[in-house]
Amino acid sequence: LAEVQTARPTASADQLADGVLRGERRALGRLMSAVENGRTDARATLKRLYAHTGRAHVVGITGPPGSGKSTLTTGVAAEYRRRERTVGIVAVDPSSPFTGGAILGDRVRMMELHGDPGVFVRSMATRGTLGGLARTTTDLVLLLAAFGKDVVLVETVGVGQDEVEIAHSADTTLVVGVPGLGDDIQTIKAGVLEIADILVVNKADLDGAQRVVGDLRGMVRLAPGPLDDGWSVPIHETVATTDSGVAALVDRIEHHRAFLERSARSHGRRAENARRQVHAIVQARLAERFAEVVSGPAWTTRFGAVAERTQDPYTLAEKILASRALLPD
Amino acid sequence: LAEVQTARPTASADQLADGVLRGERRALGRLMSAVENGRTDARATLKRLYAHTGRAHVVGITGPPGSGKSTLTTGVAAEYRRRERTVGIVAVDPSSPFTGGAILGDRVRMMELHGDPGVFVRSMATRGTLGGLARTTTDLVLLLAAFGKDVVLVETVGVGQDEVEIAHSADTTLVVGVPGLGDDIQTIKAGVLEIADILVVNKADLDGAQRVVGDLRGMVRLAPGPLDDGWSVPIHETVATTDSGVAALVDRIEHHRAFLERSARSHGRRAENARRQVHAIVQARLAERFAEVVSGPAWTTRFGAVAERTQDPYTLAEKILASRALLPD
Repeated sequence: LAEVQTARPTASADQLADGVLRGERRALGRLMSAVENGRTDARATLKRLYAHTGRAHVVGITGPPGSGKSTLTTGVAAEYRRRERTVGIVAVDPSSPFTGGAILGDRVRMMELHGDPGVFVRSMATRGTLGGLARTTTDLVLLLAAFGKDVVLVETVGVGQDEVEIAHSADTTLVVGVPGLGDDIQTIKAGVLEIADILVVNKADLDGAQRVVGDLRGMVRLAPGPLDDGWSVPIHETVATTDSGVAALVDRIEHHRAFLERSARSHGRRAENARRQVHAIVQARLAERFAEVVSGPAWTTRFGAVAERTQDPYTLAEKILASRALLPD
Repeated sequence: LAEVQTARPTASADQLADGVLRGERRALGRLMSAVENGRTDARATLKRLYAHTGRAHVVGITGPPGSGKSTLTTGVAAEYRRRERTVGIVAVDPSSPFTGGAILGDRVRMMELHGDPGVFVRSMATRGTLGGLARTTTDLVLLLAAFGKDVVLVETVGVGQDEVEIAHSADTTLVVGVPGLGDDIQTIKAGVLEIADILVVNKADLDGAQRVVGDLRGMVRLAPGPLDDGWSVPIHETVATTDSGVAALVDRIEHHRAFLERSARSHGRRAENARRQVHAIVQARLAERFAEVVSGPAWTTRFGAVAERTQDPYTLAEKILASRALLPD
């Protein structure tokens, strides 16, 4: 009955949050939508839900396109379920209205997870969330943690600013590489060492896999781990399509979790992640305020002047800052 | 003699800016470094240099790893040189201290460009510029434009927040796809339509290229172009390694440039880009200020409380905003 009530169209965000804490799936889904849509009352509930999020272990899974991350994420989720841990998944973005989403094999595996009450999967469209993708993702992870999931997997595509920000709100970050993606893979690897707790070489049965492993091993030797906290970044091989190496990968994630719990420096790492999170929230609020401040025809004229090079954007930015209009009254 | 003087270690940022306007390569390189390092006096010169940037056509080239963007960028640059246009290139990030950079073939081609006084190539490390990558890239593009380059090519890896921001400061954005990158390519395509002025299918001689072209054609039909401004996004095939289709691609870029010049809506587009640019500058300044404000042991304790879940990050963010400490006095 409670679930029916919280699922009413008129349920307030606070009622939905109560439902989330009681473990009601429909309330969770609806509160997620409200947060994604930027509803102020929904976002206000995050404050009190935050206190309930300490138990979940958040695992970021990122890497370049074509690395088989979706399959790997599904495999890791299934392995956690075999270990009787509940799992939340935020996938940024496996499907869009245009493409019809993931390939069939992954869909079938995902469907199995969908039928499992111990799993909650949420896909996020990247369309329309520009400017706030990482922020919204972090909020959805928070909701899954407050919902009581033991493990939350966050799957992102690529390694850019968003992924780095998401990685900073994860406890353990997996970066997935793969043989044969050509020259640009080098570039990705360079940025990756900053965020990886575990490097995964997927499709390890393909030609060139050992070369990728060897390259990564050399790089890991040269560079310290993310926070130079005594964790030595392992390089782990998987073939996600056959589940080869996936159980051992979950062992490694658990090993890292245990490391974080006993590490004297893990408190510092978590505080640093908290700092980044606060900054991201501040930045998102200021971005909203900026959009309000610069609306209207007078501003259109000013921006037109910048486009025509009769005004420079730096001076205009300084004027906006000096006007103090960005801050709440 | 003038060049020798501006190249003195003691040259001020203003002197370097003068050198840039006189077309001195060493002054340009040094001012770029100063801007990358966040030197305040260097950034102050951007205000006056901005007035000199209207002539350059800025072309963003982005796409997933393995799509052969570097080779394509080099080919486009060489074609512009054949047309006697000067070219600046900002490459984000072809090389890192760990990887040794691009594959040999590209290096050789790049070296040819390096020997050409009509070309100026700047590589940006992505390491250490987190939080300001797009901002710094835009500033380097500005410097190349002020230096007098007819065309500035900006090559970025992936399609994330940074690339979207960089695209918004470009006049023409090329998004490069490629056959055979697996399921994640779908995801990228969805985000890509928002920023692409020209879709390029590189490695068009590979199996599956026609399927990618067909998929993209379907998507372009369903979705409007970036600003619904009457431009219909073409899908262009290239084989960058053999220069096949590259000259025709430059024709398309020039076609888009001409379109922008005669389009009634291009003024609106440029004003919108200016708005985004001002926002990016505001955001970068606020991020610097944030870092100053939250330093010190009291803040470490507060962030520790967030990590321990005794304080929530949303309330802390609101306190920082309410304190007005982020704004200049």
